[in-house]
Amino acid sequence: MTSLSELREEVWRANLRLPSEGLVSLTWGNVSARSDDGSLVAIKPSGVPYADLGPDDVVVLDLEGRIVAGDLRPSIDTATHLELYRAFPGIGAVVHAHSTYGTAFSQARLPIDCLGTTHADHFAGPITVTRPLSPDEVGEGYEVHTGRVIVEHMLDTGRDPLHVPAVLVAGHAPFVWGTTPAAAVDNAVTLEVSAHMALVTRLLSGGNPPVLESWILATHHERKHGKNAYYGQGEG
Amino acid sequence: MTSLSELREEVWRANLRLPSEGLVSLTWGNVSARSDDGSLVAIKPSGVPYADLGPDDVVVLDLEGRIVAGDLRPSIDTATHLELYRAFPGIGAVVHAHSTYGTAFSQARLPIDCLGTTHADHFAGPITVTRPLSPDEVGEGYEVHTGRVIVEHMLDTGRDPLHVPAVLVAGHAPFVWGTTPAAAVDNAVTLEVSAHMALVTRLLSGGNPPVLESWILATHHERKHGKNAYYGQGEG
Amino acid sequence: MTSLSELREEVWRANLRLPSEGLVSLTWGNVSARSDDGSLVAIKPSGVPYADLGPDDVVVLDLEGRIVAGDLRPSIDTATHLELYRAFPGIGAVVHAHSTYGTAFSQARLPIDCLGTTHADHFAGPITVTRPLSPDEVGEGYEVHTGRVIVEHMLDTGRDPLHVPAVLVAGHAPFVWGTTPAAAVDNAVTLEVSAHMALVTRLLSGGNPPVLESWILATHHERKHGKNAYYGQGEG
Amino acid sequence: MTSLSELREEVWRANLRLPSEGLVSLTWGNVSARSDDGSLVAIKPSGVPYADLGPDDVVVLDLEGRIVAGDLRPSIDTATHLELYRAFPGIGAVVHAHSTYGTAFSQARLPIDCLGTTHADHFAGPITVTRPLSPDEVGEGYEVHTGRVIVEHMLDTGRDPLHVPAVLVAGHAPFVWGTTPAAAVDNAVTLEVSAHMALVTRLLSGGNPPVLESWILATHHERKHGKNAYYGQGEG
Repeated sequence: MTSLSELREEVWRANLRLPSEGLVSLTWGNVSARSDDGSLVAIKPSGVPYADLGPDDVVVLDLEGRIVAGDLRPSIDTATHLELYRAFPGIGAVVHAHSTYGTAFSQARLPIDCLGTTHADHFAGPITVTRPLSPDEVGEGYEVHTGRVIVEHMLDTGRDPLHVPAVLVAGHAPFVWGTTPAAAVDNAVTLEVSAHMALVTRLLSGGNPPVLESWILATHHERKHGKNAYYGQGEG
Repeated sequence: MTSLSELREEVWRANLRLPSEGLVSLTWGNVSARSDDGSLVAIKPSGVPYADLGPDDVVVLDLEGRIVAGDLRPSIDTATHLELYRAFPGIGAVVHAHSTYGTAFSQARLPIDCLGTTHADHFAGPITVTRPLSPDEVGEGYEVHTGRVIVEHMLDTGRDPLHVPAVLVAGHAPFVWGTTPAAAVDNAVTLEVSAHMALVTRLLSGGNPPVLESWILATHHERKHGKNAYYGQGEG
Repeated sequence: MTSLSELREEVWRANLRLPSEGLVSLTWGNVSARSDDGSLVAIKPSGVPYADLGPDDVVVLDLEGRIVAGDLRPSIDTATHLELYRAFPGIGAVVHAHSTYGTAFSQARLPIDCLGTTHADHFAGPITVTRPLSPDEVGEGYEVHTGRVIVEHMLDTGRDPLHVPAVLVAGHAPFVWGTTPAAAVDNAVTLEVSAHMALVTRLLSGGNPPVLESWILATHHERKHGKNAYYGQGEG
Repeated sequence: MTSLSELREEVWRANLRLPSEGLVSLTWGNVSARSDDGSLVAIKPSGVPYADLGPDDVVVLDLEGRIVAGDLRPSIDTATHLELYRAFPGIGAVVHAHSTYGTAFSQARLPIDCLGTTHADHFAGPITVTRPLSPDEVGEGYEVHTGRVIVEHMLDTGRDPLHVPAVLVAGHAPFVWGTTPAAAVDNAVTLEVSAHMALVTRLLSGGNPPVLESWILATHHERKHGKNAYYGQGEG
């Protein structure tokens, strides 16, 4: 059982990985995580440079967005995170980062197709793009509707959110999730590297790259995430 | 109220961020700032490696370019900076950096269009390109006319200089500004990353990328810079 | 004569170079080496971050995959490495890394052609791509068949494995080898940089880059690897 | 007057900048310098990692290649460097580095055109490509003929070697020079960044980028290198 102070420390560490893994410049990213009982969410404060963050700066809220602990304003994207936690009970952490290649696919409104086993290791299929928000949605609440358009997209495509734990918001950037903060950041790293590899593969293939064979995709993903996974040291 | 020695220290720190944020190689960039009362400008000395700079090396001049403090020659681009301060009373700092992607757009003489919210966060529209200087302008005073062609371009396009706080000088590189040295460097980082993202988006889109919806651009920019901005911790 | 503990230390150091040379993110790579008498193989444990590794975490196995020393599970790709050691008696170390540019060529299923002397320094010809594994092969044993498809490819193309010490597995990533762990990592670095250079050369040449003249390729390779090699300080 | 031990120290420091400025991987580059009286050349030893180098490892030779000081073998490219010193009396240092973008232009056998002021700052025109060496030249002496083909190219194009202090050897990589080791490395950095910018400019311009106006090129170059140069602090 993770205590609240352990949760804040875990979220703090995961936020520090955003710049150290090369996923963000300035303060263009944030990580949140849900408490074990599902009732609370810990998230980066808004606009604070990563180098100035400490575990106690992490803000804790309930799922309706009421602050439970922390003296700072939570991330401006908090309402988006909360929508995802409410809609997807299985996810334990959310990462939002304007990483260069993932963001470029969001801007081009093109899915990151599964072209190889690096992608397949974390995402069991293409990472797809939401529709853009309407003027009304933006007017009523930009951040909450960003969350709703992600949820709508996941439901429309009928996928388990942990099967492909990420989506590209049109004209914006990726949102990525996972069971833990560390796993969600690993997924965000994989999305960014896979996007970079997909760009290069497209350039080499005249814009028409071959997708990975379905049987290789399935096996490569299952050996790490399936019921009989045999990757790693079997912790957890 | 910022003292002269605080101003020099702030300018020194902002100059150090040019290499640490990956915006320059060698000594290809400089940051200046204006004193609170608007009468003085502090700027990097010419040709001194960033690692060798101290706050006391920062040169202070009046708006006519007469040296008020400092033993070194000011940046070779000082006359350009002074033109901008004279023409745009609202700006407090100027950054010039030959950052790779921003410079490539300047060389291609193509605007950096607003393709996503990363760009919209700092620039409320495309970052456009000046006309090239004429042989006469170059002969009469290359640096002062570089400043004048920027001012002419901003007046011709009828924009508030803080709405889109940057311009690309044709065949040269970006000039970026802001209310403070830190804000101006943040804008220079955003320009560079947005240019990189715009290149990749163009490559993914066959050269014809979709521009960001106007209502998303406006909202994303306003939440950080508008009257009712709600990003950050509300300092300043 | 290298002792077992020296072998583990050498393999540990070579694994640490994967992130420090920019060849991997997360834990996407592994290095192994063979003992002097050819009977044992030392390899990275599965899923352990490079920063957490020590020499004693390196797992030692015989060529049939039975663990001889080490408390952790060996790399998930161990069966692939063992296939290569069994088939190619001359190789002393194997590197597998999902490096960005090499992986993109694997995904595009395009060879990395020899376009210049950087490539020719380590690879005496193009680095070619295997066929994809069939559903049956994946079902029967993904890792062992990855090794077999590499061996099949090398035998089909009739080359000495040390002449071009690498292959691209279709839809997956490069496998690289050498006489020692350090030499194999040097080859993996060269493959990645050569792939990056080949991409740029293709972009500059409209997709049709000129290949290096055969007489320059031969001489450049021989001055480092030939019988009368005169590069370096003549150690070994 | 620089002593021999000062010359070796200067060459050692310049060689260390090759990896720290991102110009090389492994040991793919070397810097040499000429003594004040022009009779001796100090150069990196062959195949020694930069991190293992000390000033005393730098090898000193006369212009015919006879070793005067140093216990190690000189760089394998020494004969190329010596050809350049013999042919161009005005140059004081030579850099050879397989930097990624400069090498890609060498491989594509395309000049790096002067597309902007970053390039114009150090090179008063395009950086052009030699013809490839013939089989006979390679057979007779690969390194000495590499030097001769550079000299032939500079004489054929009729340029002062310090006006455009670099050339691209076809299928190989750039050779760069300058008056001092520090200036030559600065030129090598500028070549690499200009090549990167030129690639991006080409991609943005559909392969047909606009060249820099001749009057801007001349003025930008002269303000740093001309008789009335006014860049920097006027040292030297």
